[in-house]
Amino acid sequence: MKKIFHGKIKIFSLQKVKNKKGEILKAFNKNNLNLNGIKEVYFSWVKNKNVKAWKYHKKMTLNIVVPYGRVKFVFYDEKRKRFFNITIGENNYKRLTVSPKIWFGFKGLNSPRSLILNCANQMHKKNEIVRKKINQIKFNW
Amino acid sequence: MKKIFHGKIKIFSLQKVKNKKGEILKAFNKNNLNLNGIKEVYFSWVKNKNVKAWKYHKKMTLNIVVPYGRVKFVFYDEKRKRFFNITIGENNYKRLTVSPKIWFGFKGLNSPRSLILNCANQMHKKNEIVRKKINQIKFNW
Repeated sequence: MKKIFHGKIKIFSLQKVKNKKGEILKAFNKNNLNLNGIKEVYFSWVKNKNVKAWKYHKKMTLNIVVPYGRVKFVFYDEKRKRFFNITIGENNYKRLTVSPKIWFGFKGLNSPRSLILNCANQMHKKNEIVRKKINQIKFNW
Repeated sequence: MKKIFHGKIKIFSLQKVKNKKGEILKAFNKNNLNLNGIKEVYFSWVKNKNVKAWKYHKKMTLNIVVPYGRVKFVFYDEKRKRFFNITIGENNYKRLTVSPKIWFGFKGLNSPRSLILNCANQMHKKNEIVRKKINQIKFNW
């Protein structure tokens, strides 16, 4: 496990098990994630070259895996005016744990689309999320 | 929620949220699944027309979703000599909760492959699983 961005983002290596009928991809287990804290599990599809940005969670910690395709995640620390980006997916199969209070967005880099799994420690609530339009935080996607 | 197979299999309808950049697919939340009981979350890929069968879990309850592609699941109750099968996937987006002590297998029905998510109430352990070869339980796949 590697901590980056002042400890606010953690990157975990995950196991893939080969199988000629189709691989097994480990995502989370009770030894590498406090599953008791998980309140909601959902998928987000993102089409190739599409950007979904920007979001800021007041309370939610994200636990993100990309089992299909390839997705570039961009994080922005407003206080420090610093960006961090990482591309994960089938060929760089990692879990990202993202603390709340970071701006983030993502871009699909697989044709026709990519799939993101998020295990969140909060149920989805509209007023827990702050949004900005893509051009309100300048980044060269 | 619909119970079938003497209450051993439960079928839940799940929500899809449309988005022009890529849909959101709800899978599990604390109101529709006891997430405290989840010990491991993993993906299984299955190639088109490939069959992975048969497995029997002594203790594990499966919570299955197919976010990508289409998969036929077949269940076999050895005592009653009865089969049940259901096809789920993007176009019939459901969650299956499967009690332990049922034989099961599945077949990929999407080219080139399909993706299964399982949220299990047990960590993977070899001696918790019993296996049979595909032809040891006759089924017309």
